Amino acid sequence: MIHLLGIPYDKNSSYLRGPALAPPRIRQMARDGSTNLFSERGLEVKEGKIYRDLGDLSFESSNPESVFHQIRDKVSNTISENNRLFCFGGDHSVSYPIIDAHINLYDNLNILQFDAHSDLYDDFDGNPYSHASPFARLMETGKIGTLTQVGVRTLNNHQREQAEKFGVNITEMKDFTTDFLNHLNGPLYISLDLDVLDPAFAPGISHHEPGGLSTRQLIDLIHGIDVPVIGADIVEYNPTRDINDMAAMVSYKLFKELAELMNRNV
Amino acid sequence: MIHLLGIPYDKNSSYLRGPALAPPRIRQMARDGSTNLFSERGLEVKEGKIYRDLGDLSFESSNPESVFHQIRDKVSNTISENNRLFCFGGDHSVSYPIIDAHINLYDNLNILQFDAHSDLYDDFDGNPYSHASPFARLMETGKIGTLTQVGVRTLNNHQREQAEKFGVNITEMKDFTTDFLNHLNGPLYISLDLDVLDPAFAPGISHHEPGGLSTRQLIDLIHGIDVPVIGADIVEYNPTRDINDMAAMVSYKLFKELAELMNRNV
Amino acid sequence: MIHLLGIPYDKNSSYLRGPALAPPRIRQMARDGSTNLFSERGLEVKEGKIYRDLGDLSFESSNPESVFHQIRDKVSNTISENNRLFCFGGDHSVSYPIIDAHINLYDNLNILQFDAHSDLYDDFDGNPYSHASPFARLMETGKIGTLTQVGVRTLNNHQREQAEKFGVNITEMKDFTTDFLNHLNGPLYISLDLDVLDPAFAPGISHHEPGGLSTRQLIDLIHGIDVPVIGADIVEYNPTRDINDMAAMVSYKLFKELAELMNRNV
Amino acid sequence: MIHLLGIPYDKNSSYLRGPALAPPRIRQMARDGSTNLFSERGLEVKEGKIYRDLGDLSFESSNPESVFHQIRDKVSNTISENNRLFCFGGDHSVSYPIIDAHINLYDNLNILQFDAHSDLYDDFDGNPYSHASPFARLMETGKIGTLTQVGVRTLNNHQREQAEKFGVNITEMKDFTTDFLNHLNGPLYISLDLDVLDPAFAPGISHHEPGGLSTRQLIDLIHGIDVPVIGADIVEYNPTRDINDMAAMVSYKLFKELAELMNRNV
Amino acid sequence: MIHLLGIPYDKNSSYLRGPALAPPRIRQMARDGSTNLFSERGLEVKEGKIYRDLGDLSFESSNPESVFHQIRDKVSNTISENNRLFCFGGDHSVSYPIIDAHINLYDNLNILQFDAHSDLYDDFDGNPYSHASPFARLMETGKIGTLTQVGVRTLNNHQREQAEKFGVNITEMKDFTTDFLNHLNGPLYISLDLDVLDPAFAPGISHHEPGGLSTRQLIDLIHGIDVPVIGADIVEYNPTRDINDMAAMVSYKLFKELAELMNRNV
Amino acid sequence: MIHLLGIPYDKNSSYLRGPALAPPRIRQMARDGSTNLFSERGLEVKEGKIYRDLGDLSFESSNPESVFHQIRDKVSNTISENNRLFCFGGDHSVSYPIIDAHINLYDNLNILQFDAHSDLYDDFDGNPYSHASPFARLMETGKIGTLTQVGVRTLNNHQREQAEKFGVNITEMKDFTTDFLNHLNGPLYISLDLDVLDPAFAPGISHHEPGGLSTRQLIDLIHGIDVPVIGADIVEYNPTRDINDMAAMVSYKLFKELAELMNRNV
Repeated sequence: MIHLLGIPYDKNSSYLRGPALAPPRIRQMARDGSTNLFSERGLEVKEGKIYRDLGDLSFESSNPESVFHQIRDKVSNTISENNRLFCFGGDHSVSYPIIDAHINLYDNLNILQFDAHSDLYDDFDGNPYSHASPFARLMETGKIGTLTQVGVRTLNNHQREQAEKFGVNITEMKDFTTDFLNHLNGPLYISLDLDVLDPAFAPGISHHEPGGLSTRQLIDLIHGIDVPVIGADIVEYNPTRDINDMAAMVSYKLFKELAELMNRNV
Repeated sequence: MIHLLGIPYDKNSSYLRGPALAPPRIRQMARDGSTNLFSERGLEVKEGKIYRDLGDLSFESSNPESVFHQIRDKVSNTISENNRLFCFGGDHSVSYPIIDAHINLYDNLNILQFDAHSDLYDDFDGNPYSHASPFARLMETGKIGTLTQVGVRTLNNHQREQAEKFGVNITEMKDFTTDFLNHLNGPLYISLDLDVLDPAFAPGISHHEPGGLSTRQLIDLIHGIDVPVIGADIVEYNPTRDINDMAAMVSYKLFKELAELMNRNV
Repeated sequence: MIHLLGIPYDKNSSYLRGPALAPPRIRQMARDGSTNLFSERGLEVKEGKIYRDLGDLSFESSNPESVFHQIRDKVSNTISENNRLFCFGGDHSVSYPIIDAHINLYDNLNILQFDAHSDLYDDFDGNPYSHASPFARLMETGKIGTLTQVGVRTLNNHQREQAEKFGVNITEMKDFTTDFLNHLNGPLYISLDLDVLDPAFAPGISHHEPGGLSTRQLIDLIHGIDVPVIGADIVEYNPTRDINDMAAMVSYKLFKELAELMNRNV
Repeated sequence: MIHLLGIPYDKNSSYLRGPALAPPRIRQMARDGSTNLFSERGLEVKEGKIYRDLGDLSFESSNPESVFHQIRDKVSNTISENNRLFCFGGDHSVSYPIIDAHINLYDNLNILQFDAHSDLYDDFDGNPYSHASPFARLMETGKIGTLTQVGVRTLNNHQREQAEKFGVNITEMKDFTTDFLNHLNGPLYISLDLDVLDPAFAPGISHHEPGGLSTRQLIDLIHGIDVPVIGADIVEYNPTRDINDMAAMVSYKLFKELAELMNRNV
Repeated sequence: MIHLLGIPYDKNSSYLRGPALAPPRIRQMARDGSTNLFSERGLEVKEGKIYRDLGDLSFESSNPESVFHQIRDKVSNTISENNRLFCFGGDHSVSYPIIDAHINLYDNLNILQFDAHSDLYDDFDGNPYSHASPFARLMETGKIGTLTQVGVRTLNNHQREQAEKFGVNITEMKDFTTDFLNHLNGPLYISLDLDVLDPAFAPGISHHEPGGLSTRQLIDLIHGIDVPVIGADIVEYNPTRDINDMAAMVSYKLFKELAELMNRNV
Repeated sequence: MIHLLGIPYDKNSSYLRGPALAPPRIRQMARDGSTNLFSERGLEVKEGKIYRDLGDLSFESSNPESVFHQIRDKVSNTISENNRLFCFGGDHSVSYPIIDAHINLYDNLNILQFDAHSDLYDDFDGNPYSHASPFARLMETGKIGTLTQVGVRTLNNHQREQAEKFGVNITEMKDFTTDFLNHLNGPLYISLDLDVLDPAFAPGISHHEPGGLSTRQLIDLIHGIDVPVIGADIVEYNPTRDINDMAAMVSYKLFKELAELMNRNV
């Protein structure tokens, strides 16, 4: 079964706070009565049937290192071959402990990251847990099979060097194709930073980076994945910048589509 | 000549009110001075020349059944072979009496419905006139030639069964093609629920369902229709959710493009 | 080197004011810390290195004719073969004096105009400097090599006649292709009216005209230009209609992509 | 102990939907971390200590009559001399069954209603359960001790007649004084329609009626009440019209101040 | 009888456009169904009974001088001892021709101006019809009995000199009292610039000047006027800056209260 | 002369980021052309004449301790008996180093703090520089003459104890009077947290705490201060939550009124 966990933490953000408020807002979309529980391909993503909601993690301390360990421990204790985990962030820094916990369960874990940014900074503001660095930290472990990034449109020189050093496969928006779908391997973990979408589709994010995917394109990409997906997260939804809950609803829809993928590959 | 009628009714909505406020807001876009009266293909959609504005229907009672009959009577008294009707809703429930009136004038009427939802519920909240059910009601009459739905992305099991039972042709967003354009037949009535668009393009709607058409795609589809169009409506515009009149302007633009189509095929 | 000049003037606007507030808002996007200075193709668009910021023009009088001369004189004194100018408007009327100044430096100057409107009115409200007329004025000089308009979707009869009279090449949205890229000639001046984008991507504009380009499409078009670009402007950004600085960020991103083009072709 | 119950129902609203979404939004304000749990007079309004949260009522049917009975039964089963109930609506129609249940427990119950409207319509749209009529229905029972309305600014002839017929004490905004505080009697039930506030302070309401109380005035009035308060509700908060959760936070603050009053008088 | 006239003109505005869109938006508030037609003191302000709606003035030319004459002629032809006029602007420049027309009908006309600004500029941007100058122009005629300004909070040296020169009675916000009510004389014309209110109460204005009246205070002041009121206008409502039609509703409410005053003193 | 310094730092905020973006937004209000440079009491607050703008501090590191020292050093080097400093924050944590620098210049410095919160936490999230603690830190120095807090409405038990321990004079909103004005002593430093205002007047703040002062009340209080004011700051303006720059304009207006006070008492 899939477990759903909210991780309301955003103190590793470099620009704005807000993503800590995301989990309850996304969940609320399922209850408002404006849409139904079905994924586009016909799965009723019903609590109790398809997933179990573990609620939100409550932090003992807001210290980044302590938070890292608490998230990793919680994830480690939750996941198993039969129990897959879906997380609502939080800023993107939460993906570091989440995926780090998965490495111990899955040899050669592959990561598919939808993101406007590569998040590969060696050092950002002196904070190793910064939301600008999670994938640098993960690649440094040497335990990641492949890292595929899709939707990136903000590479600077440093990040290009990091990407080369770590052998990251990047599909930049400036030469976007769906070719990467043919090169994915399982077991696959999907980390979805909402800012991979153009801000027109998801205004509720901290870092507006124009020129992104449309929601339609992103859903079609998700439908195009046919390797086993063993975990996923949706991060960086920031309710304080949202308009009419527009990005909350996008997040909820993406949750249903990704959950169907995780459910299908059990 | 085309007649324009506003139908300010939204009490059959299941989630939010607001579409009753739509007609005057859409009309205002023609007067604000921020755009001109021309359709993209060069028709000046001028009141008095291309269409006559009948104003808004005023309801004697807000009871759903009484409203149904009042709309149907008004439409029946307005339309004829030479007088075509364009309606601004209101929620989608108004299309039931509008189209029902057309059935009596046109044998084998065909319907093209642009919509995020199939609106085929057999029963929703016990209200047979619900905005979730108009096309179930219409198909039950047995008098509809074909019903073609485009842009749907919310089918649950019940609606899939209803669609199969009624023989509805659905182009879902998840496998969108423009192929349906080759299979349309006249006489054609077009019912356009604004939520067929992605909420990014038309935020002023009650049910945000991400992953829809872009405005550009929708206009291009309209331009691709080459069978006789004998009536049309634009429904579910909800000013209380709109931003800077963005969706009001989209509605007005779609009105011009559809009016050109209705005018061309007289 | 590229020079950056803000032209905070909007009194030639026919509908709303606001674009005069644009220059400082766009510049601020570079400093907020939510994005970096790199163009998508890897140029660090850094002040002092790639461009020099001349600040905003300060007007002695708000009279349209006096403003025309002040802008043209300022631009004439700034540009030379080695000094290219990038301007942030202001409404589109400012492009008339800017380009007029360039005609004296470049024989056979070619113009690429991204715009929802052709801005070719012979007369609008009796104001020859109206933001609806700059390209009529420029074509009347007889000194423009070619004028290519892309993204137009509001042509009325008068503007079609004007376009024919002046031999303007128009790629309308209704039959959009990227074919025009193969027919561009240098030296090229690019005038980018932000409303070429669909309002979903750039809500901060005065004239919402649905059915435009996506930001992604526009950036890809810019990347497709391979003739020498000797000047550019971004106009009609209106902060009073913007949401969360969404269009300010789009403007800043387009500035970086266009600056890279201007820098590459020196 | 105080019990907290959410009543997510708004189908008796005459103009807009939305209040059904209120209860989870108000509760969320306690968790966001932007404010603390203390009332202004120093009570820590902590769940488990001061109140028990019963969650939201879930409706078997959306039929107004059935809803009336379900709410009344639930309230009847919850309240006792030692168990006081605080409800988050929902539109104002929910106060009818809530207070009706209290009448059976308290002889001569007195009601203090903060509201822009008197809600005394004998008949509105033919719906006896309309949110325009709850206090007409309650007064018709003959079991209410006194009804005191404060903040009213929309009386029409019919409502003035109803008020006179039922002997309602009204402090209209046009001649506002705090005099009514000297004439209150216990046991007192407080029904607080958020639109008693000027829309500037609580934009998230359906019926904007300018000229209302400031939040400060309303809190000071609450602090001025010194008779035993045995129950209370906050109704008509409409998240779909709110800005930055402004009215959600007002609702949460008023909840703390009213809870302190209910706690103090046990 | 009272006549209602909309004057959709805003080209004399120095900062933003938008007030030209005001008249239909304010009228719409009467039809939306969220409030009733009654003034707070019990008059049903019904079209046909209390006032006749003349619709909006349509301008032959947008030239300021021509507009001045067209407005003045229209007003002159409409008003008489028995026919009083209520105008919805438009920016404040429209009050100059409106009041100028009244001077010919009423000797010794007195003006009560609610405004954040004194609008007494001798010259603003070289436009004698500027919305910064109408009351300078009117005082220069020598035919105004008294000019009383209430709510002003932006006086610079020049405007203080102008006020002294013309003998204007100003109640500034910094030393606000209701004393001016005791010194009013009839016949009185009331010109209400919506920005007299604090922007919190009326966000839909061009010039946000904090520290203004509350809507409640303003209504109470209107209720305190007991001299004959022979005409009135509400100006500077700018829908492009409004939020949820908040200021539109304030304008409509003020219309009802002022209309009651004009009706009472016939 | 007065010096103006922007301090764009907000990493000591406990809930949201954003105040770092404040200084350029507030300055822009002086240039937009929607208001003039005069204080209500007639001082033209002109750059170069009344104040010199030092621009924004640029931080070498974002580490809280390093930032503390950099701000304190900058302020120490700027202020003297003849040079008074006005700062735009940033979050309220910046007032700690600013005032700490003033203590060395002024013996027995008195502080007037306008604030919804007392900011007296001994420890918040383990960060001694937290924006919840600056006045605890300052009082611990033992060098503050008096600390007067006005507008507070969020005291919990811990903060009440801290206030008692440090002998803070608090005028809570729940028993607001202007009495504190009679007990102020110079030299006075004024620290103005924008959230002292009700969120209706200043929506652009991180912590919405309803029940605050109106802008009018606050300006009148400032006008009521008649002891020498030697420095001031406006903090916690958060542009990411603002609507139409409403709170930016409030901040700018308060700057003018406070600058007049600082100028008058030189």
